[in-house]
Amino acid sequence: MLTLGMAYTSAAQDSLLFRKISSEIMLHGTCYDNLRVLCKTVGHRISGSPAAANAVLWGEKAMKAAGADKVWLQAADVPYWYRGKESLYLKMGKDYKQVEALSLGNSEGTGGKTLELPIIMVHNYDEFKALPESDVKGKIVFFNYRFRQDFIFTFEGYGDAVKYRGGSPSVAAAKGAAAVIIRSMSTGEDDFPHTGAMHYIDSIKKIPEMALGNTTSDMLEQACMKGTVMAKMTSECHMMPALVRSYNVIGEIKGTETPERIITVGGHLDSWDVGEGAMDDGAGCVQSIEVIRAIKALGLTPKCTIRAVLFMNEENGQKGGQAYADSALAKHERHVLAMESDAGGFSPRGIGLVMSQSQKDKVLTYKHLFLPYGVYDFTREEGGSDIDPIGKKLKVPMAGLVPDTQRYFDLHHTNNDIFENVNHRELKLGAAVLAQFIWLVSEQGLD
Amino acid sequence: MLTLGMAYTSAAQDSLLFRKISSEIMLHGTCYDNLRVLCKTVGHRISGSPAAANAVLWGEKAMKAAGADKVWLQAADVPYWYRGKESLYLKMGKDYKQVEALSLGNSEGTGGKTLELPIIMVHNYDEFKALPESDVKGKIVFFNYRFRQDFIFTFEGYGDAVKYRGGSPSVAAAKGAAAVIIRSMSTGEDDFPHTGAMHYIDSIKKIPEMALGNTTSDMLEQACMKGTVMAKMTSECHMMPALVRSYNVIGEIKGTETPERIITVGGHLDSWDVGEGAMDDGAGCVQSIEVIRAIKALGLTPKCTIRAVLFMNEENGQKGGQAYADSALAKHERHVLAMESDAGGFSPRGIGLVMSQSQKDKVLTYKHLFLPYGVYDFTREEGGSDIDPIGKKLKVPMAGLVPDTQRYFDLHHTNNDIFENVNHRELKLGAAVLAQFIWLVSEQGLD
Repeated sequence: MLTLGMAYTSAAQDSLLFRKISSEIMLHGTCYDNLRVLCKTVGHRISGSPAAANAVLWGEKAMKAAGADKVWLQAADVPYWYRGKESLYLKMGKDYKQVEALSLGNSEGTGGKTLELPIIMVHNYDEFKALPESDVKGKIVFFNYRFRQDFIFTFEGYGDAVKYRGGSPSVAAAKGAAAVIIRSMSTGEDDFPHTGAMHYIDSIKKIPEMALGNTTSDMLEQACMKGTVMAKMTSECHMMPALVRSYNVIGEIKGTETPERIITVGGHLDSWDVGEGAMDDGAGCVQSIEVIRAIKALGLTPKCTIRAVLFMNEENGQKGGQAYADSALAKHERHVLAMESDAGGFSPRGIGLVMSQSQKDKVLTYKHLFLPYGVYDFTREEGGSDIDPIGKKLKVPMAGLVPDTQRYFDLHHTNNDIFENVNHRELKLGAAVLAQFIWLVSEQGLD
Repeated sequence: MLTLGMAYTSAAQDSLLFRKISSEIMLHGTCYDNLRVLCKTVGHRISGSPAAANAVLWGEKAMKAAGADKVWLQAADVPYWYRGKESLYLKMGKDYKQVEALSLGNSEGTGGKTLELPIIMVHNYDEFKALPESDVKGKIVFFNYRFRQDFIFTFEGYGDAVKYRGGSPSVAAAKGAAAVIIRSMSTGEDDFPHTGAMHYIDSIKKIPEMALGNTTSDMLEQACMKGTVMAKMTSECHMMPALVRSYNVIGEIKGTETPERIITVGGHLDSWDVGEGAMDDGAGCVQSIEVIRAIKALGLTPKCTIRAVLFMNEENGQKGGQAYADSALAKHERHVLAMESDAGGFSPRGIGLVMSQSQKDKVLTYKHLFLPYGVYDFTREEGGSDIDPIGKKLKVPMAGLVPDTQRYFDLHHTNNDIFENVNHRELKLGAAVLAQFIWLVSEQGLD
């Protein structure tokens, strides 16, 4: 009976502590204000850019203000993709009209020259494969694949569609195409084009790729069904020849009982070079800093060492995540959990678990504690790109915050990913759930 | 084994049908477009106003376009509260400055005259009770009660705070106060004042009441702590002397097997006279119409009769809900379920159940069907104001859509409750869950 009594007391204490963490963050959290500063004073911050360097300084300052015992920078050499000027004109009626378009990240441009060429539209790779080379050669291929709105968990729709962003230039160039236009990976009922990473196959000619928003894509689709549409594409984008020295920003609370056991919670500091990188992933950064702040503000002293990490270069290289893993490996660090928030600052719904079944089972014994915070879904195997290297190289259990996904792919990688589209309560509630989970693992372990 | 096999087949068919309903609405739903038309061509539409009459015409047209077998208007005589011109100036420094303020719904104004009086601040009713009458007499009382952000389910915070909106003028007038200013029932980190219903005690003098947004409330709080703040309050608002003939809009699909059994799904058509009534409750209206449209578009033939009802006058009288119940009673209609969506067009999370335990238990056997749509919470006893009369008078089981609540009280009853703050996917997903639940009850019953 004593054991049962102790277990009961412990469960009640956990529940109480969860409430304390949540109330601290909902009432006094600084993550929303931090996000405002990041978005409005630094703005977007692609890896290697001067803005990314400013973001590192911002992160260091914010981490210190949160009360971390120790704050440091960890070097990572990152690629720097530069957009420059770009434009796309389509002749869908009598005259050319400029449309909203964005070159895809990592893409080569037209070298500042203008390609004036006809467009050939396909809806998917099967249609493209069926085309004879003569229909493709010297043309701009429009991959008009529609993001499937019928997937309720929008990351499934993204997973389904994203191959057209990543791979279509090499597929098209292999048949002699001169450039590619894609319908964005977008759930938006609007005209925001979405940028994002693309990758060339080295042996194939590197041709430019641009994305259109859904409204323009719909218009282009209609126009292509009526006849040949001409395009004038101009872009200066290119990958800079040299890597740039950049940094992860790390803030730490030293553990009391087992300081050698490290728990990481992070987001990524870089963004695409559009909007303000508010949801992707300013949100994850300020939430991770909030975990440190809340623990300190509540006077909690975790058994394990807790590190908040603002990773650099998630979007097009994951060099920050790799540097973090390499450093941990070199120093023989003992990591017990790595957790990431990189799916937007929306209301939390779940915690993704990438770990052994017995570790999952242990987490599930605490499931009821999370329900009052709207967190019920522990079924997804989602960690995060930045923690993936440490997860794999050091066999560290991983977790990922799973927020509501309905709005993410309206905003993601667009000029509309701005501070105003983040809700203060949703952001804070996500931070609270991160802090609760981190605290639980620190105190109760996963094994 | 045959029974088990049949049960299995039935469960699989339910799951498939849920998917069909969801895909129909996510891919082809018209509720978002309908909401745009309602918000942008009718706009806000307080009961009794010309705009409310336009909204009735809009609703009738939209219901017909959705394919309802029969569409009709049901008369309800409603109050008409008229705002007119209003202003509030505060002297927080050397000079008077105008601030954002809204008279509360049903409130009497200053009759167009200007009250220039000192403000006395209290934080809650306990503080107010402790004040001597001499401190209150002839002054404007500022009830500076803060919406508690530490409640995760924000309706709890609303329930906690709303007594200061509804009852404070009579409380204050009983001690001789001349007017009341309140901090809005608002989670917003902004300066939007929130209107909403207030009620006088008949035997006490009816004094004016105005609401401030959080930013101005914070400033006024600071100023009151430093010394006496003067205010100039002017307003013309008043209740019109006569009721106005208005209508509920009803669209019906006739049931095939048991047409006498009626299922109602509704939202309310009236709104406050600010913003566009997008979340409150344009969303519930267009979602209810979507239920009709989706069932028709899929060629489904429900066993029971399904009615979508756009109720009039939820905000300050519930006359539409009463008329609906009275009509059902007079006609001896047999209602098996009434469901409402009036908590905003956000991602659904649950379905509130106000019914017997055995009926709840039956619903819970279908819980797993809703999980892929993010619906997991069946614990709340939430129906809706409009269905409350029929629920009570005819003892009809009630249900309420429970969406995510984080953003609702940022927007509710403000000039910021506009179409642009509704997300198309969240709105449609809510409609899908309504349609799924309605379909399930139609085909499987609750008993």
